[in-house]
Amino acid sequence: MLYRFLKAFDERFGFETAKAHCDIPCGIYDPIMAQIPALTVVRMIDLMNDLESKGGEKGREYYNTFSRYVAVKEDHAEKAKHEIRVIWGDYVKAQHIEAHPDLPALAHKIMQFGSKTRQTTDRQAAVDFVEAINQFAEIFWATKNVKTKRAKAPYAPALELVYPDL
Amino acid sequence: MLYRFLKAFDERFGFETAKAHCDIPCGIYDPIMAQIPALTVVRMIDLMNDLESKGGEKGREYYNTFSRYVAVKEDHAEKAKHEIRVIWGDYVKAQHIEAHPDLPALAHKIMQFGSKTRQTTDRQAAVDFVEAINQFAEIFWATKNVKTKRAKAPYAPALELVYPDL
Amino acid sequence: MLYRFLKAFDERFGFETAKAHCDIPCGIYDPIMAQIPALTVVRMIDLMNDLESKGGEKGREYYNTFSRYVAVKEDHAEKAKHEIRVIWGDYVKAQHIEAHPDLPALAHKIMQFGSKTRQTTDRQAAVDFVEAINQFAEIFWATKNVKTKRAKAPYAPALELVYPDL
Amino acid sequence: MLYRFLKAFDERFGFETAKAHCDIPCGIYDPIMAQIPALTVVRMIDLMNDLESKGGEKGREYYNTFSRYVAVKEDHAEKAKHEIRVIWGDYVKAQHIEAHPDLPALAHKIMQFGSKTRQTTDRQAAVDFVEAINQFAEIFWATKNVKTKRAKAPYAPALELVYPDL
Amino acid sequence: MLYRFLKAFDERFGFETAKAHCDIPCGIYDPIMAQIPALTVVRMIDLMNDLESKGGEKGREYYNTFSRYVAVKEDHAEKAKHEIRVIWGDYVKAQHIEAHPDLPALAHKIMQFGSKTRQTTDRQAAVDFVEAINQFAEIFWATKNVKTKRAKAPYAPALELVYPDL
Amino acid sequence: MLYRFLKAFDERFGFETAKAHCDIPCGIYDPIMAQIPALTVVRMIDLMNDLESKGGEKGREYYNTFSRYVAVKEDHAEKAKHEIRVIWGDYVKAQHIEAHPDLPALAHKIMQFGSKTRQTTDRQAAVDFVEAINQFAEIFWATKNVKTKRAKAPYAPALELVYPDL
Repeated sequence: MLYRFLKAFDERFGFETAKAHCDIPCGIYDPIMAQIPALTVVRMIDLMNDLESKGGEKGREYYNTFSRYVAVKEDHAEKAKHEIRVIWGDYVKAQHIEAHPDLPALAHKIMQFGSKTRQTTDRQAAVDFVEAINQFAEIFWATKNVKTKRAKAPYAPALELVYPDL
Repeated sequence: MLYRFLKAFDERFGFETAKAHCDIPCGIYDPIMAQIPALTVVRMIDLMNDLESKGGEKGREYYNTFSRYVAVKEDHAEKAKHEIRVIWGDYVKAQHIEAHPDLPALAHKIMQFGSKTRQTTDRQAAVDFVEAINQFAEIFWATKNVKTKRAKAPYAPALELVYPDL
Repeated sequence: MLYRFLKAFDERFGFETAKAHCDIPCGIYDPIMAQIPALTVVRMIDLMNDLESKGGEKGREYYNTFSRYVAVKEDHAEKAKHEIRVIWGDYVKAQHIEAHPDLPALAHKIMQFGSKTRQTTDRQAAVDFVEAINQFAEIFWATKNVKTKRAKAPYAPALELVYPDL
Repeated sequence: MLYRFLKAFDERFGFETAKAHCDIPCGIYDPIMAQIPALTVVRMIDLMNDLESKGGEKGREYYNTFSRYVAVKEDHAEKAKHEIRVIWGDYVKAQHIEAHPDLPALAHKIMQFGSKTRQTTDRQAAVDFVEAINQFAEIFWATKNVKTKRAKAPYAPALELVYPDL
Repeated sequence: MLYRFLKAFDERFGFETAKAHCDIPCGIYDPIMAQIPALTVVRMIDLMNDLESKGGEKGREYYNTFSRYVAVKEDHAEKAKHEIRVIWGDYVKAQHIEAHPDLPALAHKIMQFGSKTRQTTDRQAAVDFVEAINQFAEIFWATKNVKTKRAKAPYAPALELVYPDL
Repeated sequence: MLYRFLKAFDERFGFETAKAHCDIPCGIYDPIMAQIPALTVVRMIDLMNDLESKGGEKGREYYNTFSRYVAVKEDHAEKAKHEIRVIWGDYVKAQHIEAHPDLPALAHKIMQFGSKTRQTTDRQAAVDFVEAINQFAEIFWATKNVKTKRAKAPYAPALELVYPDL
């Protein structure tokens, strides 16, 4: 039903349904701009774990370092969420949702996991965040008829990312 | 169907479905933070019209002024879109969509009108942008059991805005 | 005396004393853009209190959360101060100070309370910050011949805010 | 009268009247952070003049260049205004105004000239902006018992700036 | 000689020469964060060309659109330059320059082309900018023992980008 | 050798080798824009020391304050690094390096010390950061035939800064 409404709306108001309708930059959406920040969130949590395992007194060097990890985790979680919000809000059209009916729920998951990675230092939530964005990327590239593949990112944490298979 | 999926997801993963689940600031969402920027977009177009009607040579004072209007229109359209994206992405939950099934399509409209107001100097698109955000605000306040009213904004352009009736 | 100097200056240099002379956006000043951030500062302190009362070990989840509250408190205190500085610097004219001679001192109070809310986690300073901005809002709307009313904000912390009575 | 109120207020609420009470960075205010941006505004207008005098067709290279000058002029005028607003709002105390009763009016002038340099491409307004900030700097350094001197800035436009005489 | 100095310096002051020494995010440098913005610069110039070829009167819709292209070109050229400056400044160490003695000159080229793409609407300069960053990316990945490949970017303008071969 | 390559490159591609080739603002580079932030980094560490010496329980007021110092230290270290990266990337040309062959290594030192001041609360690293930037400033002014002098900054921490002798 959502699909039918959106299709009718787009046709009536003359918005192009075929291509990425951007505010500009035009047409250049790439989920990697969300995937790298999401990976950075996992990285920050791994660094927090390393810091913990060092042990020792929790003096000011500890808190200087820990604060910086929290700040970078925060910024990058927001960055990843922002990139997905923009693709979701500006690129996704009626025919995409018709072809991929799970897309709205996936966008919802991404936002939820993104919030959780900010509010906690839970590595699993951050890994789930990366994976949900991977799934979104798969669908995104499919809408552009671009095949994808999975490969380990070439930097720590070497999680699997979905890449366009070029 | 979307509602059922989201409800199941939220219950399984332990996300609160009752309150505004924020990344923080917690719970403080107010559509006025999108409505005022949207109104500013209309204002910039009105100023462009005033500039045109002055006539005269289009020299550098004209372009200095016109460029500034374009830049402010751009910033404020993005600001309004961003505020709605965040409420849409972080606040809206399964039960909201069940109660207001037009909400997803309305969010889509807002994004589309927002893009159009950036890409053109069309006043109607900007007025539609304000009105779509008004409708979103009405639903937002309804989800919080807050009555709303419409009143003219106390500054030019004195369009109607939806306000919480406090 | 301040009033007489400013009036003479404005008349000599040809600046309009009647309307909000903006850099642009033109004429759209709304103290709500300062009031909501100031309320958010109180909210962050309330969240800090909640965190304290949970008790328990102050481990990394505590510091992740606490750091985030500090950062948001910081940003929103600056945001509120900035909005008032701009209205004070760009909108307030000679005749406003003549009609409301306490305006300069009130602006000074706002800046001082704003600094204090950043430097401490003192809820009273934050509540004073909100109230000083409320008084500034009352005067602001009076200069525009707009009646005001007080009502509890429709979100926690439900402090009284001054609203234009539309 | 303003002085007496501020002094009483500061004493009652326990704000230090002696040193620069900052939000942090603490104590490091330097008007050069406003003077250099203000000089940049003049520079942009000089570049606009150079562009005009080249003559020729006003094609897209002209507008690419002119738009960039407008944008930089805009950013730097705001930057200069912001720096002065912060010193004015956070540093200036009761005893400063008592010693320099023209300080409020000077701050007002700076804001007005700053707005004018954004709204026009008038070089005199930009030069007045630089000079008003120079006068503010003189008073600022006087409040810190630091002698000042005037010298031509070591870059175009080589206007006189007020410098601390170190 | 540069190599010998840097090596001695790093050894004396205890900076790790082996891994990417980041300010944080730690270790996650990816030239794609510069390549996509650089491609966007070319895209903006292509859109300018499209706009020109439409012909017609250069009224306000033209200038609204053209100004937006200039602004996005500006932001993305700076973004690309910034990403390269950070990798150049924080990642590149003595042994990298020894292995790739053309690296400093290549960084210089990137900055020069980046400036040129901002100051003009010359497509070739923008294409050169993309290619210089491609060469930088090749060397970057080589320093990490990651093979690269070239492939057309999956969006307009479909120029070749250097990608890690994962 | 680096000098010869850069000179050849600049001559071939038509970039001016004589003046500061800016993206704009044109020609207005001033290392003070890096020196003041670097001094602020030292200041934050001094404030951390003051906080420590107060002793007492490390409760929430301590962490509110300490977090703020970390955040400001972080921002200002990046600010200083950014300003130097831009001068290094956009201003420094072949003939500058020929006249001052230690310039590349000095830029490297600045980046390294800047990173260290962020990653630790080590005052010496911050003092080294200021001094390395001072040396860069000396060379910068020398390339512009402007004499320099050293003097204590007129605010805490009153370290020596290199100033143009105007």
